Amino acid sequence: MILDKVNSPKDLKSLNLNEMNTLANEMRELIIKKVNTTGGHMGPNLGIIEATIAMHYVFNSPQDKIVFDVSHQCYPHKILTGRKEGFINPENYFKFTGYTAPEESVHDLFKVGHTSTSISLATGVAKARDLKGETGNVIALIGDGSLSGGEAYEGLNNAAILGTNMIIIVNDNDMSIAENQGGLYQNLKELRETNGKTSLNFFKTLGFDYLYVNEGNNIEKLIEAFKSVKNIDHPIVVHINTLKGHGLAVAEQNKEIFHWMLPGLLDKKPNSTAQTTEDYYSVTKEFILEKVKSDPSVIAISAATPGAYGFTKDYRAKLGKQYTDVGIAEEHAVAYASALAKSGAKPILSILSSFVQRTYDQLSQDLCLNNSPITMILHWGGLSDADATHLGSFDIPLISNIPNIVYLAPTCKEEYIRMLEWSLTQQDHPVAIRVPNTQLVSTGIEDTTDYSKLNKFKVCEEGEDIAIIGLGTFFSLAKEVKSNLKEKLNINATLVNPKFITGIDEELLEKLKADHKLVITLEDGILDGGFGEKIARFYGNSSIKVLNYGGKKEFTDRIPLQTLHQRYRLTPKQILEDVEKYL
Amino acid sequence: MILDKVNSPKDLKSLNLNEMNTLANEMRELIIKKVNTTGGHMGPNLGIIEATIAMHYVFNSPQDKIVFDVSHQCYPHKILTGRKEGFINPENYFKFTGYTAPEESVHDLFKVGHTSTSISLATGVAKARDLKGETGNVIALIGDGSLSGGEAYEGLNNAAILGTNMIIIVNDNDMSIAENQGGLYQNLKELRETNGKTSLNFFKTLGFDYLYVNEGNNIEKLIEAFKSVKNIDHPIVVHINTLKGHGLAVAEQNKEIFHWMLPGLLDKKPNSTAQTTEDYYSVTKEFILEKVKSDPSVIAISAATPGAYGFTKDYRAKLGKQYTDVGIAEEHAVAYASALAKSGAKPILSILSSFVQRTYDQLSQDLCLNNSPITMILHWGGLSDADATHLGSFDIPLISNIPNIVYLAPTCKEEYIRMLEWSLTQQDHPVAIRVPNTQLVSTGIEDTTDYSKLNKFKVCEEGEDIAIIGLGTFFSLAKEVKSNLKEKLNINATLVNPKFITGIDEELLEKLKADHKLVITLEDGILDGGFGEKIARFYGNSSIKVLNYGGKKEFTDRIPLQTLHQRYRLTPKQILEDVEKYL
Repeated sequence: MILDKVNSPKDLKSLNLNEMNTLANEMRELIIKKVNTTGGHMGPNLGIIEATIAMHYVFNSPQDKIVFDVSHQCYPHKILTGRKEGFINPENYFKFTGYTAPEESVHDLFKVGHTSTSISLATGVAKARDLKGETGNVIALIGDGSLSGGEAYEGLNNAAILGTNMIIIVNDNDMSIAENQGGLYQNLKELRETNGKTSLNFFKTLGFDYLYVNEGNNIEKLIEAFKSVKNIDHPIVVHINTLKGHGLAVAEQNKEIFHWMLPGLLDKKPNSTAQTTEDYYSVTKEFILEKVKSDPSVIAISAATPGAYGFTKDYRAKLGKQYTDVGIAEEHAVAYASALAKSGAKPILSILSSFVQRTYDQLSQDLCLNNSPITMILHWGGLSDADATHLGSFDIPLISNIPNIVYLAPTCKEEYIRMLEWSLTQQDHPVAIRVPNTQLVSTGIEDTTDYSKLNKFKVCEEGEDIAIIGLGTFFSLAKEVKSNLKEKLNINATLVNPKFITGIDEELLEKLKADHKLVITLEDGILDGGFGEKIARFYGNSSIKVLNYGGKKEFTDRIPLQTLHQRYRLTPKQILEDVEKYL
Repeated sequence: MILDKVNSPKDLKSLNLNEMNTLANEMRELIIKKVNTTGGHMGPNLGIIEATIAMHYVFNSPQDKIVFDVSHQCYPHKILTGRKEGFINPENYFKFTGYTAPEESVHDLFKVGHTSTSISLATGVAKARDLKGETGNVIALIGDGSLSGGEAYEGLNNAAILGTNMIIIVNDNDMSIAENQGGLYQNLKELRETNGKTSLNFFKTLGFDYLYVNEGNNIEKLIEAFKSVKNIDHPIVVHINTLKGHGLAVAEQNKEIFHWMLPGLLDKKPNSTAQTTEDYYSVTKEFILEKVKSDPSVIAISAATPGAYGFTKDYRAKLGKQYTDVGIAEEHAVAYASALAKSGAKPILSILSSFVQRTYDQLSQDLCLNNSPITMILHWGGLSDADATHLGSFDIPLISNIPNIVYLAPTCKEEYIRMLEWSLTQQDHPVAIRVPNTQLVSTGIEDTTDYSKLNKFKVCEEGEDIAIIGLGTFFSLAKEVKSNLKEKLNINATLVNPKFITGIDEELLEKLKADHKLVITLEDGILDGGFGEKIARFYGNSSIKVLNYGGKKEFTDRIPLQTLHQRYRLTPKQILEDVEKYL
């Protein structure tokens, strides 16, 4: 194997073109096997193998600095920078993260996972180089999908006037996670179709020098291009035309499905992911489709991750004109939804917890200040074993401290549906719903709550001494705690399903004072700035004691959920221990 | 006066060109007099009078929908849409806000004050029109300065593919608040210089149709242009070349100073704003300049509002290459600063509380996850009488619930300087400092605190029974409360200056349990998700009572600070009443 000889980028320098092509094939095989075993980003990495080899052949990392965007396409880079063992030996498959990680290698500059950041970061790296009087190339590697995000544009606009060396490699595979959305993509297409020669050139209008490489999976052509821009004295965009999923036919043909995949997808038919059992995604999809069909003013909106909540190509087609995927543009998504609602339409915006934080100002200004009645469906909220870049534990502090919005936490399908129905008919508030990131819970009992009566918590079982308030997904934990208290301490605790995250039920909390000594709050997210602290504040001047349970303010990185629950004392056993101590 | 006859846009339709020109002059005089009396946005409004007249002459608001960006240029619009009394009669000068306000008029679609939102909002308005099968024009009016913000670009990218009527008027006066920054502005310049004819056209690359109007202060030409695009069946950009401050020579010549002005500026020389007494701005500027001079790796960064913290043209020139104004691009500013710090430079980013929320995801991902040692100086944090769009009361929940960052609240110049010095020398954390939004407080006593020992609160006076924790600017309130307690209740309270917003001093709080019954927290911002709630959570399981003081989670709109303090029971008298009640 050629790869046997390659332990760092400098080992590439002595290879000839044939050897590099062989190396690319070896890397391709490793990536296919590894990703099919562990899951991960397949298509993006298969498409960028040749460019990564050429990049490391021409430039000298880490003296030359390479900044990856999203960094989900860094697997070939990891293989070439001393981490091939993580791809060769299945025992080491989980040794390295799927994103760049400075703690793993000097060749990784930043911990990255959200999109559209590389150009801004590279501009900072380049400016630091200039301030310190150093030399070397600064390279940002960004995919076409990431170019639709506002941060990428702010970066481009500023990078363009840097006046010194800066190389932006645009990896254009004509796909975001799903299809690209937006006017820019017509221009990229025109650039591809004219071999980069059309006079209408987005990058040039911003002031960049520009180079087009049509064969973006051809190592020889790439080396030639990169050599021609190495040590350039001004900012340039190198636009390379690559094939997502290159070298794996099924991935080339099913780009969206193979963008990020679960283990074993290669062993199934790509279409065998058909839904069989009901879950919160299917319930959501059914609800939206029904509303779209019965009301032409209902419109579903997503921001580049429709697949994350099961909006398949077929499903999107059914929504037709009543669906907008804005691409990676969460800020636009929120402002767009707000204006739709203000203009009498009924927007339903689906978004992931980790990405809702890309649009705080729009939530505050465009949406909440204008009090526009949109429905926001938030998926993947809660503690998880995700990468540090994709945690779902911050949305409660983020959303719930903004005025006007009503943030709801259903504990079962029936509540979820009722909340959706209410949200779509009311005109008074922006409403967000935190979909449980668990298997579907169905009580079979219709929820008839009037959610227009804000901040009314539901007392599910009346008891005494201790009240347990279990928010959303942690309502089931609350039930376990209650049953433990009964069994072990013979305490008949009160069980509360708060449903509302954005406000507290002062009347109920006041009433609890009469025959309760302790209130326990449970929330699936960090405690700081969250739900439980508001209860603690309320009871601050009373003799009621409060124990808040939730996560710690920290970036966790691929830590098993069970371990996190242990760490934060979120197991029924630990909570019982605490109660015994404090009572 | 022609204006006597104009009470709504439809009254314009019967005017001839001469009358409209006279009307423009009448409006100009009113705006100049009003703004010089009340303060406000002078230059932007003087530049857009003619375009506003032409717009309302050609289009039929409110059937045609006009969405203003920032909406600081809406004074002529207000005059023409039934609110002229707010400009004619000094008694009514404060009757209407300086921004669009749907509660004032059906001609105002959104409450707006932050930039770069109009295109996204207009896209939503247009899509709602299409879904409902309605007709009419949707017009976004955006200034060139706002075009650098990521949200504007996300909007452009999506508006371009709308496929139906949408008119984006780019009001190009060649100025943001300060100079425009970024590659885009070279393109706008080229478009102006070629009468819109250069083949390199930013808007066309995104897929827009395009029309250039060179005489953007000529009503006749504007009417002609607007007529030609009225009822167009696809998205178009109408690029109008206007003069900021048009018709007021001193404003035309001093564009930055007359962008937003305090009352009476016209009666002074524009340069007479020279600093005489020391304040937190001058202290900051002196500190930065000294560091820039002594260390080539120090770099000051601002995002389009250098004037807000006294970075005049002269001052900026002194910083030279060690200063970057990124324009309206807060997301880029944070990522750029993070990368500078990671690359060994020492970035000092100045930002306003109301605008820091435009960059939450970058604070979280680009900055804090990477733990880059930047220094962020945050101005204008705290409760205020500002417009609802420009409040400074949300930065504590926003920043302090993100891991890794150290957010500091100095109470005087000496602490502020010490914190700055520490921040610039340490390599362990992103540091943000909340500059007091008050007159300078100087104790004359050098601060020798070692801020690397995180979350150590300072006990200023030891007492018993009650501890008062006064954060930042509210430390002075804490002192007043202490002296009231002594005087009225003979309680010798403990006085604490916490200094750290992002963490609590558990050791101290534990110690206070011994001889205190009540802890009072005071913070200058909303309580929800803030500082005091963390103290309440800490004491939740103890017998210590906690009273949290701060603002309520709400958008306040130009409410006098004194009224707000009364409303939130933030006066020493009210706090004393509460203490008497709860003790």
